[in-house]
Amino acid sequence: MFAERTKYLKSSVIRETLKYSEDPEMISFAGGLPNPHTFPKKEILKLAKDVIASRPTALQYGPTEGVKELREALVKRSKNYGIKTDLENLIITTGSQQSLFLLAEILIDHGDKIAVESPTYLGALNAFSVFRPEYIGIEMDHDGMKVDTLEERLRAGEKIKFVYTIPTFQNPAGTKMTEDRRKHLLELAEKHDFLIVEDDPYSELNYSGKEIRSIKSMDNSDRVVYLSTFSKILCPGFRLGWIIGRKDIIEKMSVAKQAADLCSGNFVQYIAAEYLERNIIDKQVKLIRKTYKQKRDLMLAALEKHFSDIATWTKPEGGMFLWLEFHKSISVFDLFEYAIKEKVLFIPGAPFYAVHPKYNTMRLNFTNTDDELIEEGIARLARASKKFLK
Amino acid sequence: MFAERTKYLKSSVIRETLKYSEDPEMISFAGGLPNPHTFPKKEILKLAKDVIASRPTALQYGPTEGVKELREALVKRSKNYGIKTDLENLIITTGSQQSLFLLAEILIDHGDKIAVESPTYLGALNAFSVFRPEYIGIEMDHDGMKVDTLEERLRAGEKIKFVYTIPTFQNPAGTKMTEDRRKHLLELAEKHDFLIVEDDPYSELNYSGKEIRSIKSMDNSDRVVYLSTFSKILCPGFRLGWIIGRKDIIEKMSVAKQAADLCSGNFVQYIAAEYLERNIIDKQVKLIRKTYKQKRDLMLAALEKHFSDIATWTKPEGGMFLWLEFHKSISVFDLFEYAIKEKVLFIPGAPFYAVHPKYNTMRLNFTNTDDELIEEGIARLARASKKFLK
Repeated sequence: MFAERTKYLKSSVIRETLKYSEDPEMISFAGGLPNPHTFPKKEILKLAKDVIASRPTALQYGPTEGVKELREALVKRSKNYGIKTDLENLIITTGSQQSLFLLAEILIDHGDKIAVESPTYLGALNAFSVFRPEYIGIEMDHDGMKVDTLEERLRAGEKIKFVYTIPTFQNPAGTKMTEDRRKHLLELAEKHDFLIVEDDPYSELNYSGKEIRSIKSMDNSDRVVYLSTFSKILCPGFRLGWIIGRKDIIEKMSVAKQAADLCSGNFVQYIAAEYLERNIIDKQVKLIRKTYKQKRDLMLAALEKHFSDIATWTKPEGGMFLWLEFHKSISVFDLFEYAIKEKVLFIPGAPFYAVHPKYNTMRLNFTNTDDELIEEGIARLARASKKFLK
Repeated sequence: MFAERTKYLKSSVIRETLKYSEDPEMISFAGGLPNPHTFPKKEILKLAKDVIASRPTALQYGPTEGVKELREALVKRSKNYGIKTDLENLIITTGSQQSLFLLAEILIDHGDKIAVESPTYLGALNAFSVFRPEYIGIEMDHDGMKVDTLEERLRAGEKIKFVYTIPTFQNPAGTKMTEDRRKHLLELAEKHDFLIVEDDPYSELNYSGKEIRSIKSMDNSDRVVYLSTFSKILCPGFRLGWIIGRKDIIEKMSVAKQAADLCSGNFVQYIAAEYLERNIIDKQVKLIRKTYKQKRDLMLAALEKHFSDIATWTKPEGGMFLWLEFHKSISVFDLFEYAIKEKVLFIPGAPFYAVHPKYNTMRLNFTNTDDELIEEGIARLARASKKFLK
């Protein structure tokens, strides 16, 4: 009865593990949840009140491409980050997951080749896989995707439709692609005629203060489709993301979105527009950075203390995740069971690989755990790991 | 560069006409918009405040299948309407358009046959067409879909995957399928092994007071997938709908939704849950019925006065639309241009047909026009029509 394509629909392992996090004694590093203490509740209520009073269409259907005020505010804000764009190049989506799905829908034919980082964001793989591409996995190191490796593949004759990358504080690895590699990737895109899908949910969560130039900001030939989201800088409960890209791509996305959900919610879009316009965002982002930086530091210190002899891990300068790899070649899926008994959760790394999974890896989230529980959680995880490694 | 399927992505003619409605002198019967005067602004703000104060996850990511409190409230309310269902049979969506898209995604393989009413809801055709089914159009009369005609096709050997129907106050025709036909359709579904997709956004907008039994409420063999929405009974700006159906279908929808947009917005879902739980909805639906009944009456009277000699039209007992057919065989697309000059908008009927369009038809919406403008709008439309018919 079901369509053939349902065979390629997969439930995310992240969602599957979330059920264990209901146990109040569990310490979870599993989800990718922002910390609810950072949500600007009062400000949201104030904006909701103003928006309902002043915007006649706040509760009505809206334009498929999004509320104009929000699109204008995003165009303006993007300029501060070196991205020159225009209204016709920007569309609002019902969160980044929808951005990924709609992009896949308009770009991917069965068998098309797509290059992704190894590992990469699971949700992107789930969205892309509905349309059955062939994946090319490009290895990562501490400086992000190894663009040289991609170049070798291209030189050997590989034709790709697009590269999907999260260059800044990558999910799951926490790494940042160097500026040289970003430039190199752009050169390759021009030379070998492919698009770059730059997924950038985390660049505001920058704990080092070092300036970062998005690939989009260096894009002179309009080859970069840039994705971002309000989930990490306001709240995920609004389901709002946006895409900046070539006009023909945005137009196709808009027609696809019309069939997918008509439009995103006007109510939350108007609130988000005021959140930008009144510059509440900057204060908010400062708070988020401060909160998460401390948690990252606590986790790195705890890992140093408990894991130095059995694993290595990335030291993210921003974002929400780090990536741990055991010295030994073990299966972290089995470790997962031991960890549940010790009341600690993480996400096994293997599902983040489109091809050639490494089973001795895991993703650790540090943003949604109380400060005083982070070391305890890492200690539990070390205990479970050492039992398992015996 | 674009995927093959983008050839089957169509922009809705309704959306295209909306741009003309920005002219302040225009009287529009075109959109399918609820009347914003009926939106419970104060109540929404009160609920928003309560929800943010009392629900720790009001602004967080939520479960793909929807917030439990909302699903429970909908299960409870469905019972009042004779639909016995359970949590595992109900999923929240980002509006009915998403319900239609996800259903199409999990059910339709290229070439599958789907029976639809002639005319039917344009947005459904746009969602289904992405997956390239073959349409079978079943004629309508004042009692809804001619189920006998469907039976003839089935007896002749036609195999269909599902019937898509809006049995109650149909969009675009405004008709109501008789109870006998509903039962007949269910019998056919069992005998010929197909599903019924019952789209029911309007049954609460009942102006006659006559009881209506949904097809789902008579469904003993779990063949009906039932869709409804908050857009017409709360507000469209929340983007919230729901589906009730067989467990395996709901599970597949959930996996598909995960890839499509992860989850619908927690914030608006908690508000909607309280809207049901505190029974604000009943007062609200009373107001909506009263407001729209009056508008329907005004439009019917105006049509009687201005159109009796040149057209016939349906007399809806509920919903938002009526359907007008000219005596003469003209193209209403050309009339559209005349009407714009007279400052009145409608939607040409032809795009609502999956097959064999009737060009001398139009859809008129009566819910979003001020009472005192309805007769003037119909008079303008009559003037344009008479000029055009000359």
